[in-house]
Amino acid sequence: MSRPITSSPRRLTIRDVAKAAGVSLTTVSHALNDRGVVDPVTRARVKQVAADLGYRPNVRAQRLRSGSANSIALVSSMPFAVSGGVSRLGFMMEVAGIAAEAAMRRGLALVFVPPLEDAQAFLEGLDIDGAILLEPMTHDPNVRLLQERGVALVSIGRQGGGADSLPFVDLQSTATAHLLLNHLWEQGRRRIALVQSSAVRDSYASHKKAYENFATAHAMPLRYMQVEESLGEAGGQEACAKLLARYPDIDALCVPVDAFAVGALRAVQQAGLRVPQDVMIATRYDGLRARTAEPSLTAVDLHLEQVATLAVELLFEHLSGDKSRMSVLGPKPELRARASTQRDA
Amino acid sequence: MSRPITSSPRRLTIRDVAKAAGVSLTTVSHALNDRGVVDPVTRARVKQVAADLGYRPNVRAQRLRSGSANSIALVSSMPFAVSGGVSRLGFMMEVAGIAAEAAMRRGLALVFVPPLEDAQAFLEGLDIDGAILLEPMTHDPNVRLLQERGVALVSIGRQGGGADSLPFVDLQSTATAHLLLNHLWEQGRRRIALVQSSAVRDSYASHKKAYENFATAHAMPLRYMQVEESLGEAGGQEACAKLLARYPDIDALCVPVDAFAVGALRAVQQAGLRVPQDVMIATRYDGLRARTAEPSLTAVDLHLEQVATLAVELLFEHLSGDKSRMSVLGPKPELRARASTQRDA
Repeated sequence: MSRPITSSPRRLTIRDVAKAAGVSLTTVSHALNDRGVVDPVTRARVKQVAADLGYRPNVRAQRLRSGSANSIALVSSMPFAVSGGVSRLGFMMEVAGIAAEAAMRRGLALVFVPPLEDAQAFLEGLDIDGAILLEPMTHDPNVRLLQERGVALVSIGRQGGGADSLPFVDLQSTATAHLLLNHLWEQGRRRIALVQSSAVRDSYASHKKAYENFATAHAMPLRYMQVEESLGEAGGQEACAKLLARYPDIDALCVPVDAFAVGALRAVQQAGLRVPQDVMIATRYDGLRARTAEPSLTAVDLHLEQVATLAVELLFEHLSGDKSRMSVLGPKPELRARASTQRDA
Repeated sequence: MSRPITSSPRRLTIRDVAKAAGVSLTTVSHALNDRGVVDPVTRARVKQVAADLGYRPNVRAQRLRSGSANSIALVSSMPFAVSGGVSRLGFMMEVAGIAAEAAMRRGLALVFVPPLEDAQAFLEGLDIDGAILLEPMTHDPNVRLLQERGVALVSIGRQGGGADSLPFVDLQSTATAHLLLNHLWEQGRRRIALVQSSAVRDSYASHKKAYENFATAHAMPLRYMQVEESLGEAGGQEACAKLLARYPDIDALCVPVDAFAVGALRAVQQAGLRVPQDVMIATRYDGLRARTAEPSLTAVDLHLEQVATLAVELLFEHLSGDKSRMSVLGPKPELRARASTQRDA
């Protein structure tokens, strides 16, 4: 990787290379870009002269010529209250780290679009070829916006709502819901409540449906409450407090959104009950919130490394014009049992 | 934000707007970009027509005209063994989340450049105006590469090595080292060893100097070992095992690099010693590694939210041509005492 360093702050141009090599601008351009008809010896000499001078091509001009931005974006449609939080080390950042690596190995830059209110205006001005959307809603404004611009899209988690869903990595949300519910049942719980986001996302719908089927199969009464995502931890706390007051027989809370689960923990403790002895709590994303809660929360390892890599691969296929795969099965979710659901604690 | 959806997949151009508005291409361009001399009524009408049609400007062409990529990169020069790891939720991702937000509020996209071997080749092709470097080494190849290209740079943590250091956010590394050493001393420890990375970074040099001054002031013998960053947790473990074998009187390990600290924990336990009773361990970055270790590790809250925001602000100033501030004092680091340094445990 060593190369001569120019002492001048002026940026070298193709003119400098042409002058030093004693050839025309066109010859330099063709030689460096392996285009046109250039004698192989001349081509090699021009490349050597360019290397000796320390010439670097103008990246932006190249981008415009190639018609490609060589950039993809990672976009969340979750409100900040859920996807951000005190430590900001959530689901999205875990995916971002891996996706950036996978993208880079294919020569693509990953632009990280944080979950903020004004993300939409920002997205409009973003020069990208493709984007990965995290669990988009059924009618996600970001999806429409990017589709109109001709940006290739894939989603992590199916975009619900029917036939025209995006190519996606299947997060296996029903399997995740069953893992949590079966675990709570095996721990002896018979009055399991579900506290879920009111947003229209496929994973939420899958969880709810799995819960209803589970309740029917086990003749368990339904204890269900919806929370608005933008309310974050406080919203989860309030909803759980209400549920516990209304149904004092609840012995377990299945709270897939981790921000809500932290709120659930507070609600149980403020009601003078103990976790896990009186009420067990389980959540979905095995992140910092679940691991550092007191007691630590049982969660599900979604194998986000693999998920993120699969998403970049799928997007890369679609960007390259290969649209044969409209979905990819994600890795099998695995339960991570922790103190919050420990029997005989 | 609602707008009509075009049924045609063809992208609308400025020509469509000109035709519909019955004006020239130049008038449309001037009206939409608020440039040139256009009658205010015409300007408003053109904008309305463009909005009605659902016209969006060509982002890439705009970028080329403005000469600005509206993108900045976050670049780590840490090897993957230290900055990555099993959970990948490290220092860099925490900074990335906040920096992306702060950048977006200024209309800048944040490109995340993961700490990989081939990052340099990738950086060469990246269309960016500026970059934030995380704790660059004294002779950091990424710094040179980006400087040659005229990319504006700031660093988080001073780039060591003298007069021509980059504009930086001061991480207050000496204060951090004192926090850790004084804490171990107050916990009754009198044979504190320092295990440090061999890479030439300013924070490492500051820690070492602070350790030497501390040892002199307290008449404490020096117990010091260097580890190569690329060896990660295993390297930290091996170094600590050697140190403990050579100096059985060591009663505390100050291990600023968190990957090494996790290795230190294993080394102590494998030597049949207890943490914290026989050997206390303290580290610098208060991330997932420190919080989820068993026992949890005493660490320092560097207030990375503020650090990341300050870095984006400083970079934005330099991008805007205001180069008055060459450094910004970062927030005061705060100790987070945990089980690994608990007295009378």
